[in-house]
Amino acid sequence: MTLADRWLLPDGVDEALPKQAAKIEHLRRTLLNLHENWGYKLVIPPLLEYLDSLLIGAGSDLDLETFKVIDQLSGRLMGIRADFTSQVARIDAHCLKQDGVQRLSYCGSVLRTTPAGLDGTRSPIQLGAELYGHSGIESDLEILSLMLDTLTTTGLNKLVLDVGHIDVVRGVMAASGVNGEQESKLTDLYRAKGLPELEAYVSTLTIDGQAKQWLLALPRLCGGVEVLEQAEAALSGVSESVTNALKQIRAVSEVVSQRFESVGLHFDLSDMESYSYHTGLVFAAYVPGHGNAVARGGRYDYIGEVFGRSRPATGFSTDVKALVALADVVVAEPQKVLAPLATTAALWQQVQSLRSEGYKVIEQLEPSLDGADFDFQLVGEGDQWKLVSIK
Amino acid sequence: MTLADRWLLPDGVDEALPKQAAKIEHLRRTLLNLHENWGYKLVIPPLLEYLDSLLIGAGSDLDLETFKVIDQLSGRLMGIRADFTSQVARIDAHCLKQDGVQRLSYCGSVLRTTPAGLDGTRSPIQLGAELYGHSGIESDLEILSLMLDTLTTTGLNKLVLDVGHIDVVRGVMAASGVNGEQESKLTDLYRAKGLPELEAYVSTLTIDGQAKQWLLALPRLCGGVEVLEQAEAALSGVSESVTNALKQIRAVSEVVSQRFESVGLHFDLSDMESYSYHTGLVFAAYVPGHGNAVARGGRYDYIGEVFGRSRPATGFSTDVKALVALADVVVAEPQKVLAPLATTAALWQQVQSLRSEGYKVIEQLEPSLDGADFDFQLVGEGDQWKLVSIK
Repeated sequence: MTLADRWLLPDGVDEALPKQAAKIEHLRRTLLNLHENWGYKLVIPPLLEYLDSLLIGAGSDLDLETFKVIDQLSGRLMGIRADFTSQVARIDAHCLKQDGVQRLSYCGSVLRTTPAGLDGTRSPIQLGAELYGHSGIESDLEILSLMLDTLTTTGLNKLVLDVGHIDVVRGVMAASGVNGEQESKLTDLYRAKGLPELEAYVSTLTIDGQAKQWLLALPRLCGGVEVLEQAEAALSGVSESVTNALKQIRAVSEVVSQRFESVGLHFDLSDMESYSYHTGLVFAAYVPGHGNAVARGGRYDYIGEVFGRSRPATGFSTDVKALVALADVVVAEPQKVLAPLATTAALWQQVQSLRSEGYKVIEQLEPSLDGADFDFQLVGEGDQWKLVSIK
Repeated sequence: MTLADRWLLPDGVDEALPKQAAKIEHLRRTLLNLHENWGYKLVIPPLLEYLDSLLIGAGSDLDLETFKVIDQLSGRLMGIRADFTSQVARIDAHCLKQDGVQRLSYCGSVLRTTPAGLDGTRSPIQLGAELYGHSGIESDLEILSLMLDTLTTTGLNKLVLDVGHIDVVRGVMAASGVNGEQESKLTDLYRAKGLPELEAYVSTLTIDGQAKQWLLALPRLCGGVEVLEQAEAALSGVSESVTNALKQIRAVSEVVSQRFESVGLHFDLSDMESYSYHTGLVFAAYVPGHGNAVARGGRYDYIGEVFGRSRPATGFSTDVKALVALADVVVAEPQKVLAPLATTAALWQQVQSLRSEGYKVIEQLEPSLDGADFDFQLVGEGDQWKLVSIK
């Protein structure tokens, strides 16, 4: 390894130098305060734990994204978390055994084996919130509103919210009578958005004509708020679960336009892009011109089942580093004071008292430091010390 | 894996539930603010990087403590950081290329393969500061004072500071003319504090009588401030580097008793316990009755050499989780307001405006919530909403 190589970071791994680090820390505090004011309690799950606990109900996508190490103490496999959701579910299920609603928030580093999305990061600072113990649409709306409040508090005002519901595709498939293999082929076609291929494939299925119409209608139900009316018409007879899903999407649409006027709405009813643990309403927020979602969330009931406690749950998460890159985060700097070396007790006390008042006081270790970058200088007058403005 | 196993965490790995998490977050902010007021700039190094960069100049102890994973993108070995020092050295050497003094601080999770010390943790939240570009005793005194200020700000007032200097043992060995093998045997004996074994071993060495006296004097130079005078007498003729080392220890002693009256001092001049990268003054702070050091620091010049920039450096670190366990950290809770579900725009605005004023406002998702745990209730009067005290 050459000298020049030693300071290279792995792809998708980055560090924050002082200017950016100050913004990340500032935003972290602002957003955690916001979550506290919404009643969400901070928890700090460990960075690594046994793999069996980390990957519960999460499907193979999360497994592939998780770095694994051997525990020298037990010989068992551990994982560095790639996501907080299963950890927070474990905390709700086991540590905070309590009936009723539980609101939890978190913020910390996660690691992924491969770069995600167009940002290509493998080391986001994930911040999010989870609401346990309530299955109604009211809790979906609370988490969704908290997510949008998080983004607008960050300073991102031009947002587009993508809304979908797992039960729409699932309900249409169930009512159409397709088998498992056909279902997974259809899901692939929806994901690829290849309409001619979809039409060709659907025409080969031995299901009734109405079901074929439903399957073909789904990928076209994609666009602005007008899509909801089209969906209510096209899918009215499918099943109760589809009707309920559409009602929930409608409720989201109404709340968003009432609470966040500047947020645009987009619906894509054949979209299934999410972790496999989602079970109901799902949503993602986008900044126009930026390919990746800046925040994602949705319902994932019953994830705590493997911990012995099956509870309804909904939550969202975002990446503080990505937010800082997109938003104009302004950090107020304290006033800077240049002080001589504190060789006497009196000067030391003066320096410490200025620090506790909020000044940034730097002792002059180098004679060459000339105060150009400072607001004040601490100057001796007799046995007193006073602040003299430098400007 | 049984249901009961799934929520078990690996040994030495823990999580913080809301009460403790609030204290950790509060202390984290207080201490990072303190470091900012001392002129230290926050940096956020990555959680993982190439192993060659992580382990520079750090010796085999850090290598054994570091979890390794394979980078799927490059096939190279990466490590999860077990310590921040080499990362911050890389940032100073490469990213912030600047002459003169550089003050940097950090706070984040580190992971270790085996539990460290009596606490037995493998997942501390390390917080620390590093000062680059100054080789004089003044920068040692600054870092030492910042370390003690960090601990007293945390609320730990009864502290004992252990002070040593790498050059004392090293200088005595060099002047005694012992060879490498003998040196490492002597180091083991000093570590074991076995005086009879040491005497027996030294009597077998073919070195002059004065050198033998120096070697035997070292482990007895252990105790309060009176040790300094004894050391100055016993080791006066050894070498200039030993005399300088004793002068630096004396300077530390004077500054601590002037600045931190309640901090006790302890010296152990044969102590070599530290990471192998240390090169000068070393120190550790203890809370009486608690076996592990609560903070540790010292000089480690030239660590940036492998990054192409050899600079004098000194720094310290502590574990925020350990501090919270030892100190009585008090977190002010915001006033809690119970609000009805925000079904109208007026109520939503009222709820949001209370949140931005600093209230913790919780929407009533469950009818069973009765306000027992709240300070206020938001009650409708006509088309107005007002706060009614619950007590």
